[in-house]
Amino acid sequence: MTDKVNILPKADFADKLTRVRHLMTVAQADTLLLGDNANLYYLTGRIFLGYMMITHTDVYYFLRRPSHLTGEGVHLIHKPENIPSIVDTTTLGNVALELNQASYATVQRLAAALGTANPRNADTIMMEARAVKTRREVEKIKLSSDRLTAVYRAIPRLYRPGMSDIELQIEIEHLSRQKGNLGIFRINGQDMELNMGSVLVGENADTPSPYDFAMGGAGADPSLPAGADGTIIRPGHTVMVDTNGDFTGYMTDMTRTFACGYIDPEAIRAHRLSIDICHELARMGRPGTPASALYHRAVEMARQAGLEHRFMGHRSQAGFVGHGVGIAINELPVIAPRSQAELTVGNVIALEPKFVMPHTGAVGIENTYVVRPDGMECLTTAPEELIELEN
Amino acid sequence: MTDKVNILPKADFADKLTRVRHLMTVAQADTLLLGDNANLYYLTGRIFLGYMMITHTDVYYFLRRPSHLTGEGVHLIHKPENIPSIVDTTTLGNVALELNQASYATVQRLAAALGTANPRNADTIMMEARAVKTRREVEKIKLSSDRLTAVYRAIPRLYRPGMSDIELQIEIEHLSRQKGNLGIFRINGQDMELNMGSVLVGENADTPSPYDFAMGGAGADPSLPAGADGTIIRPGHTVMVDTNGDFTGYMTDMTRTFACGYIDPEAIRAHRLSIDICHELARMGRPGTPASALYHRAVEMARQAGLEHRFMGHRSQAGFVGHGVGIAINELPVIAPRSQAELTVGNVIALEPKFVMPHTGAVGIENTYVVRPDGMECLTTAPEELIELEN
Repeated sequence: MTDKVNILPKADFADKLTRVRHLMTVAQADTLLLGDNANLYYLTGRIFLGYMMITHTDVYYFLRRPSHLTGEGVHLIHKPENIPSIVDTTTLGNVALELNQASYATVQRLAAALGTANPRNADTIMMEARAVKTRREVEKIKLSSDRLTAVYRAIPRLYRPGMSDIELQIEIEHLSRQKGNLGIFRINGQDMELNMGSVLVGENADTPSPYDFAMGGAGADPSLPAGADGTIIRPGHTVMVDTNGDFTGYMTDMTRTFACGYIDPEAIRAHRLSIDICHELARMGRPGTPASALYHRAVEMARQAGLEHRFMGHRSQAGFVGHGVGIAINELPVIAPRSQAELTVGNVIALEPKFVMPHTGAVGIENTYVVRPDGMECLTTAPEELIELEN
Repeated sequence: MTDKVNILPKADFADKLTRVRHLMTVAQADTLLLGDNANLYYLTGRIFLGYMMITHTDVYYFLRRPSHLTGEGVHLIHKPENIPSIVDTTTLGNVALELNQASYATVQRLAAALGTANPRNADTIMMEARAVKTRREVEKIKLSSDRLTAVYRAIPRLYRPGMSDIELQIEIEHLSRQKGNLGIFRINGQDMELNMGSVLVGENADTPSPYDFAMGGAGADPSLPAGADGTIIRPGHTVMVDTNGDFTGYMTDMTRTFACGYIDPEAIRAHRLSIDICHELARMGRPGTPASALYHRAVEMARQAGLEHRFMGHRSQAGFVGHGVGIAINELPVIAPRSQAELTVGNVIALEPKFVMPHTGAVGIENTYVVRPDGMECLTTAPEELIELEN
């Protein structure tokens, strides 16, 4: 691989830089200092230890490690206190730091080094920037989607009667890794943790989780309370698979539900409704559509079917039906009742209207869409109907 | 599972609470407010969304989710601003918050809610507390060590001639998951990321990484620049495996090196030296031994062998030879030149004196030890010598 610190194609970097600088202007920030891995990856195509500084005229890379990287604007530093020997910090104006992603101690140290009394929030700028994907980013998400679709198509072949949810999950992870999955699951913020995804079977689907995912599950151990808990897959169960889609540094998000034996017709009806909601929202979603309108339409359809008390969970219900996807699994916009966002060309959004049904388990689908000038294009193309597992 | 918020055995919780309160006194903190998953897991045996408050007289659990948990001191909250309706914040004295683990925005919000002008650092208290394991914690690390040892013993059977490092890594992950590995790799701080571990072969072992691990590697993709990069394992290569040891919520850390065909005698010599250094440090390490003394002895042995320029890396050298292990892979004490720590009964420490050899790859071992009153007990018992892979 090249030793250039910034390995993005020039046009892609220029698009992103223009967008970030526009959002800096809106936020009245004159200087942005970034150190979060996902933000650095967004703007350089790689991860390094150090900081990237963006002003309206210049770009600096303050590099701690690896120290052999080169390029215009690269300066080696040992610590943030070295930065003032490279740039005149009195000229930086309003400085924005990563107030949501960086620790309190890190922000305090950076602010002291740069002489910044009241830092603006770089994360709100970067989350807005990253919500609108460039052409190259969409291509990466498409590639992840195609590979994940191939994984989902193979899942029925991985199933053996008598398997537990954890055993099936391990086989899915293994196949996915063989097909190029990078195995990392990036989540914005510090409260949420997950290994490579979630397989939910039977009553475990109704176990509330501390994490802000759409669905719960007890998990295999109290140290990681989400997803599969060792439930044996038996006739009458649905098997909801929502597994890691990071094959390219960019994630895609897809859920499919499988059926073991005879399934309660009410669960089958709820699954069909999930498909209908997904398709309806994808038809509604155009540039300018309020994210909240999609949420309200989904809830309305669940209510009309008499299933609102099972929509997005049962004992614990999630407050959204979709979310942006990109370098992290939880980007903007969020499809939630109080969202102020309107859909924009280049948004990549996962819609996941799901239901938790008594005894049976979770049902529903999740697709990832890119917002085009004429509507939402679905990137996750595995069959949507309940797929039978052969016993 | 029980719905109690605190599922630790009473004696274990009492031990930890006594230790934490002692460290609070030393740090002149009257109140500790914790929200980090690892800290909550340490003190309750589970993870929840919310906060735990510890004063010298009381323990509160401010629970956001899951909301069905019960127990003495549990109070449901929607947001941190609800806390003052439960406790009189004017009585809290000096409040310590997680300045290293929590974001700037989170600390600001908590400090405002509690009326705290200058928060103390709860993370330094918690890192000191977690550095000394209780009997139950050591048992959990032992169990992880036993299971990981079984994985390492099976690695030669997973190897097929012509495999790439990534292909071997995927098979190791798969077997480890089948043997109960939880699949999550907890790291303190936000700069380091890893999937389930690292397999280093040939020249890739000398590729510097941005992360603060002992070894580097280019990784499979620039979005995750560490470990295996697709190198085909060929005769003359060593294969260093350093893979996830989290089977119980508590990690263990072990590295073993495998040999493909004829190996350069200089690399074999360096591998033997790694074993010698490990054993020498384990002999030296007793309660009261300075961590820095272990580091200096390791460097001295590498220097006497003329291998100091290949010790702990070559193009980029790590500044430590060992580190604490527990809920996270990077706990205290750090075995580094400027460490002020002295070994203490209950420390669990991974020692990893490794070398990067030209063309061949990385060599050396890593073991996890618990500090006992009479010395260091090794928990990771797979064979230490270079193990031949059959071609």
